[in-house]
Amino acid sequence: MRAFEHGGNIYNTDGQAENWLDFSANINPIGLSETVKTAILNHIDGLVHYPDPQAKELKSAIAVRYNIALENIITLNGAAEFFYLFFNTFRPRRVVIPVPGFSEYERAARAANCEVKYFFTYAENSFNISFDELIEAIRTEDINCVVLANPNNPTGNLLGSKEIIKLLEDVEFVVIDESFVDFLGDDHSLRQLTKSYSNLVVVQSLTKFFAIPGLRLGFAIADETIINRIELGKDVWNVNYLAQKAGAAALNDVNYINKTRCWIAAERDYITDRLRNIEGITFFEPTVNFVLIKFKTVDIALNVIDTLKSHKILVRSCDNFPGLDGSYIRMAIRSREENCKVLDVLERLSK
Amino acid sequence: MRAFEHGGNIYNTDGQAENWLDFSANINPIGLSETVKTAILNHIDGLVHYPDPQAKELKSAIAVRYNIALENIITLNGAAEFFYLFFNTFRPRRVVIPVPGFSEYERAARAANCEVKYFFTYAENSFNISFDELIEAIRTEDINCVVLANPNNPTGNLLGSKEIIKLLEDVEFVVIDESFVDFLGDDHSLRQLTKSYSNLVVVQSLTKFFAIPGLRLGFAIADETIINRIELGKDVWNVNYLAQKAGAAALNDVNYINKTRCWIAAERDYITDRLRNIEGITFFEPTVNFVLIKFKTVDIALNVIDTLKSHKILVRSCDNFPGLDGSYIRMAIRSREENCKVLDVLERLSK
Repeated sequence: MRAFEHGGNIYNTDGQAENWLDFSANINPIGLSETVKTAILNHIDGLVHYPDPQAKELKSAIAVRYNIALENIITLNGAAEFFYLFFNTFRPRRVVIPVPGFSEYERAARAANCEVKYFFTYAENSFNISFDELIEAIRTEDINCVVLANPNNPTGNLLGSKEIIKLLEDVEFVVIDESFVDFLGDDHSLRQLTKSYSNLVVVQSLTKFFAIPGLRLGFAIADETIINRIELGKDVWNVNYLAQKAGAAALNDVNYINKTRCWIAAERDYITDRLRNIEGITFFEPTVNFVLIKFKTVDIALNVIDTLKSHKILVRSCDNFPGLDGSYIRMAIRSREENCKVLDVLERLSK
Repeated sequence: MRAFEHGGNIYNTDGQAENWLDFSANINPIGLSETVKTAILNHIDGLVHYPDPQAKELKSAIAVRYNIALENIITLNGAAEFFYLFFNTFRPRRVVIPVPGFSEYERAARAANCEVKYFFTYAENSFNISFDELIEAIRTEDINCVVLANPNNPTGNLLGSKEIIKLLEDVEFVVIDESFVDFLGDDHSLRQLTKSYSNLVVVQSLTKFFAIPGLRLGFAIADETIINRIELGKDVWNVNYLAQKAGAAALNDVNYINKTRCWIAAERDYITDRLRNIEGITFFEPTVNFVLIKFKTVDIALNVIDTLKSHKILVRSCDNFPGLDGSYIRMAIRSREENCKVLDVLERLSK
């Protein structure tokens, strides 16, 4: 894959989304909730109006659901938008990004002429970040911004609040992408730390959990000063009207949220049980709805990818993740039946 | 109104869009075309996929409709997004903006720390731009970017290619916002000049003409070098999936396009005929779907706005347009029946 290319690009196949089983994007396989679909259908005629520039209804739903004050929330045209807005607004000189990680952080930082330093994490150490070394690097290399993810994509690693608090005392900005944390639950989020640290931003996507990546929807939480400055750097209608309505409905859809949490807990266990018994692969304990798998060689991984493709199944090659190579793939966790299709192929090929 | 506030904000009324007749936003009153609505309805289940990062289908429709090569097109989450992307990418030192004009140009330029200079146009001169003076200002004040609109909002003034060509030879970047030009037709657009001038960008909205401001959709046309650099400054999913589908459908909806052109031609004449006979007002010849009206005093204008509000009608006060004041209002041109409601009030109040 080319640099900065992502999974989920069914348009580079035969262009017919419905023909493919997509494990290359990490989207909730339960799909559109009925509540969200109804909210969208009920508001199509409202498209003749501009979206609410202040996104009042959506922000209120976020504020209640995540226990955050309205003035600490900015709503986004997808979480990825945040990184472009943030770097353009604050233009930190030097940004450190642990790798492997989501490539948009780097792409956005470079677009704003920030200098980007990778901080490598290693398979041998389960891709954990050595925070002592990270803080040392920040001090010696004059870094003023760190971008982290909790959990990290594609490794699944989680962050702890103790290390983050130490980090917050040592660097001008810490941005944590929690786009997948909803699959785990509020206990694992660091968002409440934004109430104590004015240099912390927590970014969240609503499109993975609620299966609406096509609609674009995310938000960020931070001190009011940061939020207000970023608001000035974007047009006021960035979140479309249907996304605002769908988001407000989704966040109140307790049934869907519970159903998703039950599904992921069960399915993660099922997948790891089966992966454990496949010879010749290493996998990294999934925390949310994707799992990173390493094959012995790039050729074996390529053969897996091609075989899956012949079954109309897409997985994510990790050959364009700095810190990984083509021997790694990332696969989404989907429904039992769908997961079995991939696992069957992996088992067959390992023999 | 506060600085940088816009019309069309029905959320600052009682929040109930359906209760208000909105002449403060310039949206095609024919509303959602059936073709567009069907395209949206048919693709709601596709929201579980990411939008096409390359917007291939949408770009092809734009390319065919406007006779522009694919590589010269960038698709946008609304035309307003363009200005933030452009200024952040190129960071021109000094930008000149004729006023009165659309305030997002200035807001976006300031967000990227560009210095903004107003170039005043005057009611006495029908708000025409004196190009000799503008070029003189560019030379003496070391300006490297000019932002114009064709037609201009809120004055309706059109630009001619001769003056623009002269300008293009004298300044690093010329950006022309043609968000309303579709109401007039292709003859009035300057977009084909982008084929000869690598320093010209033409921006266009699809939301006003096709009545989908809630969906967000626009595009810009320029030399490939400019397009490629701006692509790098935004995430690849900025145009949501439904907007891509709706846009492709809309651009092929010849019936809707023709119906709109007929309506606007007839209605513009009808409105101007009646406005001409109202005592105590001055209006500026509308070219597209809005008209700028001046009352003798701010108090008279305020009284008009309040009276219309009591009839649940919103018009756009121009008190926050640099170069205008509270004695001006801008009203959209809507259906005959709706226009009559405003004209009746204006006639009654003038007596």
